[in-house]
Amino acid sequence: MSEADAARPDMVQAGTSNPLSRLALRRVLIDTWHENVAYMHRDCEVYRAEGFKALSKVEVRSNGRSVLATLNVVDDKGIVACGELGLSKAAFAQLDVADGHTVTVAQAEPPASIGALHRKLGGERLGQEDFRAIVHDISAHHYSKIELTAFVVATHRDELDREEVYFLTQAMVEAGARLDWREPLVVDKHCIGGIPGNRTSMLVVPIVAAHGMLCPKTSSRAITSPAGTADTMEVLAQVELPIERLQQIVQQHRGCLAWGGTAQLSPADDVLISVERPLALDAPGQMVASILSKKIAAGSSHLVLDIPIGPTAKVRSMPEAQRLRRLFEYVARRMKLSLDVVITDGRQPIGQGIGPVLEARDVMRVLENDPRAPMDLRQKALRLAGRMLEADPDVRGGDGYAIARDILDSGRALQRMNEIIDSQGRRPFDHHHPELGRLSFDIPARGNGVVSGIDNLQLARIARLAGAPKVPEAGVDLLRKLGDTVRDGEPLYRVHASYPADLEFARQACARSSGYQIGRAEDVPHAYVEF
Amino acid sequence: MSEADAARPDMVQAGTSNPLSRLALRRVLIDTWHENVAYMHRDCEVYRAEGFKALSKVEVRSNGRSVLATLNVVDDKGIVACGELGLSKAAFAQLDVADGHTVTVAQAEPPASIGALHRKLGGERLGQEDFRAIVHDISAHHYSKIELTAFVVATHRDELDREEVYFLTQAMVEAGARLDWREPLVVDKHCIGGIPGNRTSMLVVPIVAAHGMLCPKTSSRAITSPAGTADTMEVLAQVELPIERLQQIVQQHRGCLAWGGTAQLSPADDVLISVERPLALDAPGQMVASILSKKIAAGSSHLVLDIPIGPTAKVRSMPEAQRLRRLFEYVARRMKLSLDVVITDGRQPIGQGIGPVLEARDVMRVLENDPRAPMDLRQKALRLAGRMLEADPDVRGGDGYAIARDILDSGRALQRMNEIIDSQGRRPFDHHHPELGRLSFDIPARGNGVVSGIDNLQLARIARLAGAPKVPEAGVDLLRKLGDTVRDGEPLYRVHASYPADLEFARQACARSSGYQIGRAEDVPHAYVEF
Repeated sequence: MSEADAARPDMVQAGTSNPLSRLALRRVLIDTWHENVAYMHRDCEVYRAEGFKALSKVEVRSNGRSVLATLNVVDDKGIVACGELGLSKAAFAQLDVADGHTVTVAQAEPPASIGALHRKLGGERLGQEDFRAIVHDISAHHYSKIELTAFVVATHRDELDREEVYFLTQAMVEAGARLDWREPLVVDKHCIGGIPGNRTSMLVVPIVAAHGMLCPKTSSRAITSPAGTADTMEVLAQVELPIERLQQIVQQHRGCLAWGGTAQLSPADDVLISVERPLALDAPGQMVASILSKKIAAGSSHLVLDIPIGPTAKVRSMPEAQRLRRLFEYVARRMKLSLDVVITDGRQPIGQGIGPVLEARDVMRVLENDPRAPMDLRQKALRLAGRMLEADPDVRGGDGYAIARDILDSGRALQRMNEIIDSQGRRPFDHHHPELGRLSFDIPARGNGVVSGIDNLQLARIARLAGAPKVPEAGVDLLRKLGDTVRDGEPLYRVHASYPADLEFARQACARSSGYQIGRAEDVPHAYVEF
Repeated sequence: MSEADAARPDMVQAGTSNPLSRLALRRVLIDTWHENVAYMHRDCEVYRAEGFKALSKVEVRSNGRSVLATLNVVDDKGIVACGELGLSKAAFAQLDVADGHTVTVAQAEPPASIGALHRKLGGERLGQEDFRAIVHDISAHHYSKIELTAFVVATHRDELDREEVYFLTQAMVEAGARLDWREPLVVDKHCIGGIPGNRTSMLVVPIVAAHGMLCPKTSSRAITSPAGTADTMEVLAQVELPIERLQQIVQQHRGCLAWGGTAQLSPADDVLISVERPLALDAPGQMVASILSKKIAAGSSHLVLDIPIGPTAKVRSMPEAQRLRRLFEYVARRMKLSLDVVITDGRQPIGQGIGPVLEARDVMRVLENDPRAPMDLRQKALRLAGRMLEADPDVRGGDGYAIARDILDSGRALQRMNEIIDSQGRRPFDHHHPELGRLSFDIPARGNGVVSGIDNLQLARIARLAGAPKVPEAGVDLLRKLGDTVRDGEPLYRVHASYPADLEFARQACARSSGYQIGRAEDVPHAYVEF
């Protein structure tokens, strides 16, 4: 939907007849993330005349298009001169007119859905039209960061009932593009997140595609984690592909592993994430709407959803996992998505490496049936792939796992992965000799015993401080996992970095807490696995 | 409290031994309001090395001081070059070191109170220490705009019980400076706001001070209204005075009418307002903490609080006013402030003018006993002043009003006001011939009848669009009030502006809604007045 569609009849007109409010557009090369910012010089005649204030919202119009932006007042003519109106990079791109073009500017009316937002803040239940209006405004960047946060917090906790979550999901799908693969069976998998090293998608996609099922996987980049599937796949291949090219690859190989950001699927989700992540909020309703809207917009008919449980996972108990599962199932049914929820072991990271290059190494070892391949990653991928294969009406219930294992063991999954890599555009990477960050240190065990706890959050934090995912070769290589016996001084894990400052940050984090507990065998927490 | 005090032992150290993380400080002349923003060039070696992200928070250190700021990534070396770290104006001022000074930068740990914030987001009740920690972080600018909004929304509605409101108020007082007038009786008045033209303070202060009571009034500037007391007083006199000068004036004249912004009273309040106002949130708990913390920090022992009720006032019913009154009374008692709540008529603007110059004209007419003086402004000021005078143990209950009226009618209030104006620094203003915005238009009545409704919000909005308070001579001059008989075509009010664009904005707002209803005499809403 274009910005022009979003203009409302009640909007204060930007006095286009008045030369005072006309300014020359200037692209200001500042990345303000998902918040539109307009820059105006304090001595600008328009600013002085019209009673704008710092932090007030303005509407900038040109060529029948408009964007809303928060106003920052500038006292440096090098950034924006009198007679100019600056826009931050994303806002400039949304307005989509040339530098120097004439724009008009006016105080913005509040977004059309602000009444619905206030009703939610007041504790009311909202209807389908309310969610449509709110999500439309969010997608069109009409909400300021403050308004976005207010929405996220007001819909946090138990503030949304399950039908409201359905309305939100539906509105998020409608607000963006939607892919149509023109096949009845389009499978996907997704994990709710929080477990480092959990790169099963890069195994599941080639297995399922080799079986012939359509699995067009679009993934995200890491926002707060040390690697997303897109970051790890990017070690091996191009992941930023035009949607037309993606469709060709999927037709040819039945699968892909690409970054989903170019497709404009559920754009409100990307905007909401920009405030949810800094707050570390992961409310059930928001998680369900975020995940299901992306998958439905991507054209999936069947989804296997992985909910890991563990003391440092997002979900920490079986009752909590079951509540979340029921909410996912309710909304999926309303959205006509076939959903299979799998509750998995989230007590520790999956695989050995944390960080793009280390995780790509683990994935390739599993595909090559290398004896050094991490067994937990292999097992989990086979089980998830098995559940996906059972969406095929020709596969008998219970047979999926064995079929997946045959595809992997026979080398057909590896072959399919290589075809996908070649089609997307292979990048030079020798997974037999992966180039890891040249700076490193080991964290040794203190005392003899058994590894009785590994903190997912702390290990992810250490890997990020070491540079992952921006420095792909940085991260953490786990040398011991839960239940392993260790002796005093033996290394538990190795941290890799490429820059001294990053190494130092990671070292300080390890000094505060290694993330490992050494105890007795009976201290290892019980796994709630449900396969 | 200095920024340095706020540094926490668990903070990631900025790798001061590492030359990579050292940058040259640059003041970036962008006013980002109450959010600290740091600017770093995308090609800056530190940025590339350390895995910062747009929107991540960084800690900038120099000379043992530090500030937290949201990171914006810049692609223009004119704004910030490689090797430089830019800070927005307010953040630069907080760090308080010279341009070009070496700074170190590191990823910031979350503020120390973030755990308490998350417990509030999860619906928990917080204790006194939690509020202290949160308010400390807010005052020290450790919260991002997102975190601030999360706090404001999570403490909105019925989320705070009355003891929590007390904890919040207490913490807000403790976080700033506190004035001590060294007298047992320090009186003040405050209105919860929302009624245009309500400039009673400029009458009450000279009356009460002429009686000999200490009334050191510090006021705010308008944020979303067309004029605050400080804006209106500024038409007549300087209002930005150093605290020492303020104290001299108060000692000499027993009163003042100054802007409170220089005194660092309840600094968290100013930060919280920066997100409450754009959201138009006015939750009872936040209102009580905001108002009482400012008054207690300003050294008041007695406060008369004005709660107006009306269909377009902040409080719209008597039960709502009584609930709010009880909350104010509970917190005031815990804070040992003597509080007298007065519920007043908020059905329409007070006085005739809306906007600094127009309101200053009304105030001076009342002080001079001019027959054109608006009677409602005079009556309300006398009643409030009477209640304040009754805080004097020598004044008998019920006598305050008559004493106030004698002081006003005898010219002693005018004389005291002139002394205060002269001490603060008189500005050239001829209130007999006030210079109003040279552009104007009238809004006529449509049809014959009685004025049966005046929308406070719409009239305030029109006055703001016309330029008030930034253009002091702009605003709205009300020619008819509730209950007045009007004939078709007779002017209801006149809008004044100084700039054509402002006039046009105001005209469009009037075209959408004049803010006046013309009906029958029996349609005029009942006034809930309690004096």
